[in-house]
Amino acid sequence: MRLSELGELGLLAALERRGLVRHIENDAAQLPGGLVVTQDALVEGVHFRHEWTSWRDLGYKAAAVNLSDLAASGAEPEALLVTLAARGETRVEEVLELYAGLCEPGVPIVGGDTSGGAVTSVTVTALGRATRVPGRAGARPGDYLVVTGPLGGSAAGYHCLRVGSEHPLAEAHRRPPLRLAEGRRLAERAHAMLDLSDGLALDAGRLAARSGCRLVIDLELVPLAEGLNEAAALVGRSIWELAAGFGEDYELLAAVPEPMFTVIGRCERGSGAELHLDGERLDLAGWEHFP
Amino acid sequence: MRLSELGELGLLAALERRGLVRHIENDAAQLPGGLVVTQDALVEGVHFRHEWTSWRDLGYKAAAVNLSDLAASGAEPEALLVTLAARGETRVEEVLELYAGLCEPGVPIVGGDTSGGAVTSVTVTALGRATRVPGRAGARPGDYLVVTGPLGGSAAGYHCLRVGSEHPLAEAHRRPPLRLAEGRRLAERAHAMLDLSDGLALDAGRLAARSGCRLVIDLELVPLAEGLNEAAALVGRSIWELAAGFGEDYELLAAVPEPMFTVIGRCERGSGAELHLDGERLDLAGWEHFP
Repeated sequence: MRLSELGELGLLAALERRGLVRHIENDAAQLPGGLVVTQDALVEGVHFRHEWTSWRDLGYKAAAVNLSDLAASGAEPEALLVTLAARGETRVEEVLELYAGLCEPGVPIVGGDTSGGAVTSVTVTALGRATRVPGRAGARPGDYLVVTGPLGGSAAGYHCLRVGSEHPLAEAHRRPPLRLAEGRRLAERAHAMLDLSDGLALDAGRLAARSGCRLVIDLELVPLAEGLNEAAALVGRSIWELAAGFGEDYELLAAVPEPMFTVIGRCERGSGAELHLDGERLDLAGWEHFP
Repeated sequence: MRLSELGELGLLAALERRGLVRHIENDAAQLPGGLVVTQDALVEGVHFRHEWTSWRDLGYKAAAVNLSDLAASGAEPEALLVTLAARGETRVEEVLELYAGLCEPGVPIVGGDTSGGAVTSVTVTALGRATRVPGRAGARPGDYLVVTGPLGGSAAGYHCLRVGSEHPLAEAHRRPPLRLAEGRRLAERAHAMLDLSDGLALDAGRLAARSGCRLVIDLELVPLAEGLNEAAALVGRSIWELAAGFGEDYELLAAVPEPMFTVIGRCERGSGAELHLDGERLDLAGWEHFP
């Protein structure tokens, strides 16, 4: 079987079954001393294209997607490590811009590696400390399901860039939000939490599966990115596909015992995640890592 | 200017000057709580070729080169994070073999990421704890310069593989040693220490530059990998080029106040690193990261 057939989740499950990795499906690993650590890569041609993304934005996003995993763990960031692979003909000024973007969130880069490579890739490790990590397995019937901000902007921006349109939402795709303070606040109370990297439909399904309960989301309650209707029309896609079926919004999704931020659904007995719109169930896919 | 003109050391210096990274030239970063963390990548076409390297060996080496940085910091390893980028058509069995190799040194993989990509790359973060990290800046006149094992095997193995010969030293290129116990023992006493990843000539120069002293190495004292003479003849290169000008031996080089392991030289007042052979000075280059 090929990676493209098995998919990322299938691969992680196979690795776990064989005891080759531990808890790799979580946003971040926990180590003694309250240490929380995560690692994510942005690869040219898969996660970004140089035509659409400035080096500075690439750096910012590489830091932000890792800090988002720390946010989902309720952690305070301490340091980044950065490994860059790039072509030898890359201009030094571009690489300095990349690191300037990586530094924008204000977390020091204390190590890493640089290497030649046929494509640009930026792998970041983010380290932080947390007093309480909610994890993904604790959601229980009766919990409120909440998000920290509007969805769909990154998907709309991506599709606009694909059709060559510099819509204002392109910025939402290039510059995901940092929800570190929100993450620490949620971590005090949340029974389960993750960041929305692969789409609400897929990520809610993960939370449901790990927690052994059912999540019911009312799409009418989901906050939408400003200008999403207009952008959806421009690219010929439904707002729900953009807001729940794509990912990269990097808002936090949490199961909490009382309402906080924006309530979009509830946790019930059962299994699976359901998206409801006008009383009907909607089926949406998510981001696939080995296309 | 292009990366290939500036080189890795020039890039790191430029990043440090602008305050974009901190102490990235060290083997590993130090964080509160005795935490030591390092990150290194193996990129297809730069650090390895699939024709010469099995997936299992690739995994082992990706773990080993990072654990070598922990060894050079005198640290006890705690965990690895692994990010794999690979083509969608990669066979799942190959990826499982890769992770089996990554697990061979016995340090648990607790997180990471997987992604599609046009070339295979494996980025590993290794975390450990150390009570005392010698660093690179403390060597002083009068110190002995010591190494933990024989040099040249990896270089010889690499050149044999390039000419299509399955010489026994190919194994030294694929399977670098783990010097964790030696690193912890040296860290108790050493004034400065690093692992030999880029060649004795280049790495000794780094130690000398950071410590503000001169290192004089007697090549006659350098322990050589078994079969190096034969392999050198086979690939038409001098044993000194292989043992001091290539790198990837991953033995530790340390400046210590009394003899330990194998003494290969001494530390004096002055600057630079000199390799002496039969009373003559030898000039050798090292590994360049943006060829």
